[in-house]
Amino acid sequence: MFQNQNTICALATANGVGAIGVIRLSGSKSYEVVSKSFSKNLVGLSSHTTHFGTISSKEGILIDEVLVAIFENGKSFTGEESVEISCHGSVYIQQKILAILIENGCRMANPGEFTQRAFLNGKMDLSQAEAVADLIASESKSAHDIALKQLRGKFSSELKELREKLINFASLVELELDFAEEDVEFADRTELKSLVSNVLIYIKRLAKSFELGNAIKNGVPVAIVGAPNTGKSTLLNQLLGDDRAIVSNIEGTTRDVIEETLNIEGILFRLIDTAGIREGAEEVEAMGIERSLEKIKQATIVLCIADATKPDNIKEVSSWTQELEVSHPDKKIVMVLNKTDVVPSQVEEAIHISAKQGSNIEQLKDRLVSEVQGDFNLGNETIVSNARHYEALVQTAESLQKAEEGLATEVTADFVAMDIRQAMFHLGSITGDISTDDLLGNIFSNFCIGK
Amino acid sequence: MFQNQNTICALATANGVGAIGVIRLSGSKSYEVVSKSFSKNLVGLSSHTTHFGTISSKEGILIDEVLVAIFENGKSFTGEESVEISCHGSVYIQQKILAILIENGCRMANPGEFTQRAFLNGKMDLSQAEAVADLIASESKSAHDIALKQLRGKFSSELKELREKLINFASLVELELDFAEEDVEFADRTELKSLVSNVLIYIKRLAKSFELGNAIKNGVPVAIVGAPNTGKSTLLNQLLGDDRAIVSNIEGTTRDVIEETLNIEGILFRLIDTAGIREGAEEVEAMGIERSLEKIKQATIVLCIADATKPDNIKEVSSWTQELEVSHPDKKIVMVLNKTDVVPSQVEEAIHISAKQGSNIEQLKDRLVSEVQGDFNLGNETIVSNARHYEALVQTAESLQKAEEGLATEVTADFVAMDIRQAMFHLGSITGDISTDDLLGNIFSNFCIGK
Repeated sequence: MFQNQNTICALATANGVGAIGVIRLSGSKSYEVVSKSFSKNLVGLSSHTTHFGTISSKEGILIDEVLVAIFENGKSFTGEESVEISCHGSVYIQQKILAILIENGCRMANPGEFTQRAFLNGKMDLSQAEAVADLIASESKSAHDIALKQLRGKFSSELKELREKLINFASLVELELDFAEEDVEFADRTELKSLVSNVLIYIKRLAKSFELGNAIKNGVPVAIVGAPNTGKSTLLNQLLGDDRAIVSNIEGTTRDVIEETLNIEGILFRLIDTAGIREGAEEVEAMGIERSLEKIKQATIVLCIADATKPDNIKEVSSWTQELEVSHPDKKIVMVLNKTDVVPSQVEEAIHISAKQGSNIEQLKDRLVSEVQGDFNLGNETIVSNARHYEALVQTAESLQKAEEGLATEVTADFVAMDIRQAMFHLGSITGDISTDDLLGNIFSNFCIGK
Repeated sequence: MFQNQNTICALATANGVGAIGVIRLSGSKSYEVVSKSFSKNLVGLSSHTTHFGTISSKEGILIDEVLVAIFENGKSFTGEESVEISCHGSVYIQQKILAILIENGCRMANPGEFTQRAFLNGKMDLSQAEAVADLIASESKSAHDIALKQLRGKFSSELKELREKLINFASLVELELDFAEEDVEFADRTELKSLVSNVLIYIKRLAKSFELGNAIKNGVPVAIVGAPNTGKSTLLNQLLGDDRAIVSNIEGTTRDVIEETLNIEGILFRLIDTAGIREGAEEVEAMGIERSLEKIKQATIVLCIADATKPDNIKEVSSWTQELEVSHPDKKIVMVLNKTDVVPSQVEEAIHISAKQGSNIEQLKDRLVSEVQGDFNLGNETIVSNARHYEALVQTAESLQKAEEGLATEVTADFVAMDIRQAMFHLGSITGDISTDDLLGNIFSNFCIGK
């Protein structure tokens, strides 16, 4: 078991003022460090008990009345001796207690260091550790469900199974190598071929699920396109509405840019390039085709907005949506007719709304949901939502493909064995059976501090 | 003991995403409600223990892996059976768990309801309960120190002592009333006079401390005045600097308006009317005297900014500060000479800075601190920082004053007794010995939810 010399501490709850804040410590000196400033000696007390008392500075100045929970070595989240201090949730108190703990012999935790220790101590594998960050960042039911499933080890155990199959395969092939001169075949070639191709199909399915997984995690990309003054900005505000305060602008661990997101019935939608809409200085020419096409390329759903008060615009958008349906069969194209409160014109295939009055916005939201709901019925399937895992799966598939080709063209066993080893390496990097310091540093530095 | 039928729940940690979030329950059904969705039955388990497990919805859908801490009836913060659930800190999970708890038979807590229950169950008096809110909102060492002292009951015990003295006094006077026709004096009048006047002096001192207490809690008011383009806005930004992210714009429970505040060496300063400075469209005429005077009226410290590149402005501000020192002897007037990087002119009484270069800003900050530091050496004195307490103290003093006058002019004992009773009533309202539902509703509705 990994045992780090350092005892670490950090605020584990969200920044800002709350009724309470929780400061977490992990490491072999956790009890000792806290006991120096706490009104009770924690050493020797039972694990999983809580203790009310006071925290004071070295000079004996009272800082707060707190509740302390203790966790024995081996029985905590990190696998190390741990303490959680619940203090009053003022920023001043939280900072002061952290300062005292540091003075008493621990250091501030790095981002993700608690979870990293849990991984290093064998409490979870790498994909589970990454699920912790995803779970915290999840803003929708579907993202939460994927992350939780991953945290509970479903993905890991599937990978483990695949890896065991490959190990078995590889050892048989390698055994052949030892007897290469005798030209025997221990491994039944037909069986081997079927095994590799089954694993490959499975890996490819996992890799393919990333498209959906990514949409679930980061939101289904939606483009809103249309001529200037068709009410795109008003529609955007209507869509975001109350929801905005809850889901938007929360800087996740997985996103570089803050975007407008929208949670409808547990599905997260991400509105593409809304900055342009907000600024109002979007398209110069009438339809802004070029810029719109760029947005459409990134989108899963395209909302084409037409102005009901302008018959020409209706015609133009209507024919354009029909063209898009042909030219982009993989996209879901929805025509929206705005300002129908002013001119109640009828276009059968369009959703009639008034962004200004807020009418039929619910109908539009329902449409957004119904466009993707089928894909979001996850059932019990494993969905990959992590870009690192996706890349590893693609590399695994490449190596397996080579092995499959090798078996087909009857190259020597040592080449096949090498490809299989390579596939196992990539597969193992997902769960951390294979890991490097660089990889770990990369993963955990994207966590928030305190986790 | 007060026992509420309802079991309540709320998020106790700050809003937003953190590594963990804590949901708190209180009420006789806390164990029962949590057990319905938790993987372990809490009923019968020992108080002050923590339990790892999972929370699932009614439909059996797993929501999160959590740590649950339980507190027996009589052994918790509220005095009731309580549970604290530490979950992963995603907004989605927190909301989902709350929804499940409510479905299982508890309701969302009102603001301050946990603390209100602690008060109603006799775990703390009213002034201690109010200190909880102050402690959470405290942004500086001095505000924290006052609140913590109050929470620990120092203020309460002083008030109790005073009240006991008055009770003793009142009962003696009222005894006299029973024997009114016999014209006896049980209470030694000289002793009574001295008692009332001593209590009155003490109450007045406490009431007077509110000026300081308020400055400590809400910040020492600082006005920045000067002609347009003297660099007030730049100075403001320099002063706020890094500090801003930590202390400003945190909506406290005690303030209605978000203001720019600045924490220097544990003392909170509140910059008056900075909106005007930020917008840059502040004064129309040269010195904007009228508007400046309005700001000065509210300030404890006045920073008069002069432009070192304009000799006329220097002269004007210099003579103006001298006038202010005479006309406002209660204010601390500080002349600041800006843009001294451009023209290094010398005005002996002024602090020379360059807001643009950031030079000598530390010196200015030191000056701000030194202007009030003397007042902030709290020692062991009780400081009143709550406006409600202040009002009650003023009313107590008024009643005592009447009683004192009555004793001096030898009015009948029943009038004196009435005044004393009135004083006791006001004093008792601070600690909640005397309380009404209205008063309680008023106090606790200003708390944040979850406390």
